[in-house]
Amino acid sequence: MPVNLNPPDKLLPIAGARLGVADAAVKKPGQPDVALMALAAGTSVACVFTRNAFAAAPVALGRKHIGNHKARALLINSGNANAGTGEAGLVDATQCCEAVAGALAIDAADVLPFSTGVIGHRLPVDRLCRAAGEASDTLDEDGWLAAARAMMTTDVVPKGLSRRMTLADGQVVTLTGIAKGSGMICPDMATMLAFVGTDAAIGGEALQQALDASVADSFNSITVDGDTSTNDACLLFATGQSATLRPGTPDWLVFTTALAEIMQGLAQAVIRDAEGATRFITLDVTGAADTEEARRVAFTVGQSPLVKTACFAGDPNWGRILAAVGRAGVDALDISGVSIHLDDVVIVANGRPAPDYREADAEAVMAQAEFTIAIDLGRGQAGTRIWTSDLSHDYITINAEYRT
Amino acid sequence: MPVNLNPPDKLLPIAGARLGVADAAVKKPGQPDVALMALAAGTSVACVFTRNAFAAAPVALGRKHIGNHKARALLINSGNANAGTGEAGLVDATQCCEAVAGALAIDAADVLPFSTGVIGHRLPVDRLCRAAGEASDTLDEDGWLAAARAMMTTDVVPKGLSRRMTLADGQVVTLTGIAKGSGMICPDMATMLAFVGTDAAIGGEALQQALDASVADSFNSITVDGDTSTNDACLLFATGQSATLRPGTPDWLVFTTALAEIMQGLAQAVIRDAEGATRFITLDVTGAADTEEARRVAFTVGQSPLVKTACFAGDPNWGRILAAVGRAGVDALDISGVSIHLDDVVIVANGRPAPDYREADAEAVMAQAEFTIAIDLGRGQAGTRIWTSDLSHDYITINAEYRT
Repeated sequence: MPVNLNPPDKLLPIAGARLGVADAAVKKPGQPDVALMALAAGTSVACVFTRNAFAAAPVALGRKHIGNHKARALLINSGNANAGTGEAGLVDATQCCEAVAGALAIDAADVLPFSTGVIGHRLPVDRLCRAAGEASDTLDEDGWLAAARAMMTTDVVPKGLSRRMTLADGQVVTLTGIAKGSGMICPDMATMLAFVGTDAAIGGEALQQALDASVADSFNSITVDGDTSTNDACLLFATGQSATLRPGTPDWLVFTTALAEIMQGLAQAVIRDAEGATRFITLDVTGAADTEEARRVAFTVGQSPLVKTACFAGDPNWGRILAAVGRAGVDALDISGVSIHLDDVVIVANGRPAPDYREADAEAVMAQAEFTIAIDLGRGQAGTRIWTSDLSHDYITINAEYRT
Repeated sequence: MPVNLNPPDKLLPIAGARLGVADAAVKKPGQPDVALMALAAGTSVACVFTRNAFAAAPVALGRKHIGNHKARALLINSGNANAGTGEAGLVDATQCCEAVAGALAIDAADVLPFSTGVIGHRLPVDRLCRAAGEASDTLDEDGWLAAARAMMTTDVVPKGLSRRMTLADGQVVTLTGIAKGSGMICPDMATMLAFVGTDAAIGGEALQQALDASVADSFNSITVDGDTSTNDACLLFATGQSATLRPGTPDWLVFTTALAEIMQGLAQAVIRDAEGATRFITLDVTGAADTEEARRVAFTVGQSPLVKTACFAGDPNWGRILAAVGRAGVDALDISGVSIHLDDVVIVANGRPAPDYREADAEAVMAQAEFTIAIDLGRGQAGTRIWTSDLSHDYITINAEYRT
């Protein structure tokens, strides 16, 4: 069950973006599995894609189509990743883009395709093209939540967030984002799929800069199972229907702060809805020599099956945290500088069990659905924060039975 | 349940090595949890220890005591790792060595201590010292299997192997080894605990050289969960009661070949008895630019929770293998060179689904308890072979309930 995560109450519409969904019977029949976003002429887009060498066909095509930071439509399907499908997969993705182009009377090169689901199967192109046409008949500025639902695979809860901000001159700018992702989560650029839109007018390069800056502390700071997807993509678009924003201005700071909130909120929602998760765990690493070292420690602990099963059990078996820190490959780590806290309970101080540590205190922390593991390496000023889930029986069940 | 692994039928005695066991009530009462090996005067020893920065107290003390490649006794306890115990842990381990020294009338600096079990708890030193004395009363050249049993923690099956070889001049040399290990297995020098003895006479440095060479392709080529233990140690001793062996001779090759068999057999036994394992999986990577790259791919695939749950399910969801290869960080990987086999079934050829692939063929391979995943990167001559297990419900149960 998701950890403290409910479907979004209300997702604010973004002027210039209309969304529709349809059922192509790729996922379970009767559940929409295709989402279409139609974007106003002049919309800027920025995207980060997976770094997986086996990037899926839609990722390859999307990289090509996004060249000029412009797009008029996004086509998303769940249930089939169109990954590991070779040249044929590229042809399939192109055909889907062409179907959207026909329905919306735009250029196929202005359509970006996104797929998520099982790897290694051809797309049912005919059904997808028909569904793309059907989705174009349901386009609506209030379609965000329906689109978030249509993207879901093993997700239990649709994920979305909105922010509205008032700029210095009184103009109002809106940001809305949706995301999907639950397993195969260790983004190396972005989570499986996330789409964030604003009605502001922002140039393509500035938009990419804002996205890159916000990805590091959001989608690139989460892990469920250490498995980076072949289809990860995070897209930010700006429809240009409200204020014009430029880097280096006070309004830019207002915008990027709101963007960071959306991105971090969506990334955390992925962890709250991680496959089989019963805990939402924040991992803070401080006192590192540099950020890279801090992140190595954080991800080593956050991906340790033994730490994660202990979290599932609510068992403060802190030796496993210590063992994971010890194997993280920190050069010449002086363990006498290492301290570990569970929320405010000191477990390890100066590399040794804290003198006044009482297991009951740590058990009380770990009995919670959310807690923080804080690790201070005591050797520098750098740090990082990531989020992870526990490893439960349901993770095994979900992933052993994924295709059955 | 262990995968095709039975307790050893017969472990050959090693002249000059006597083993005894006793119950210190560290583990479940009524099960011996202390093993003592008494070694003849003049015995050479070589050891590789964990590289975990939080190496346990016995590892720190063992590194000190083994300085001159000599030892007269090994004291092993299970149930408590004496790790994360700071200075007090060192004092405890020293006291245990002194108890053995008293019982055997030897120098405490000639006793090497080994511990395995829960991290972060003080050793029950009094009970251990008493048990060490009791174990010294049961010393027997035929005590190998009893010692293998006394080392077990979550192990289901005791692990041991023997080899007898005849040298060019007709002299007979014997090798016997025992190991324990089942979880927290991603050795970075050795598995949790392994002890191999021979009656040959071998100098300390040559012995270390033989051990180092055999560790790479045995205990350093297995992974259960990617978690490197704080207590890993693999020790090789030579009692000098039979033939004298020197590097560079034909007999040395006979010896090191037999040693490699013992080491690899014990390492594989750890994987066959991995926590919750239902499959024994060989991972072959070929066509890599260098060995380091081959090992990175092998361990990325072998530690992927998604690959491992698919193996548990017997589901040839090969997209997960491909995704893991793609995220292994191979520089400028040309996916059109990548091929993947499951035993003799070609799944991916030249980066694409093999044209004549039939899922039923792959299902038949994965229905077996043992199979090979072979990955050719098509970019060089280097390769590696490692062994891993699947990820099952029982792994979660064992590790969520470890301390209860």
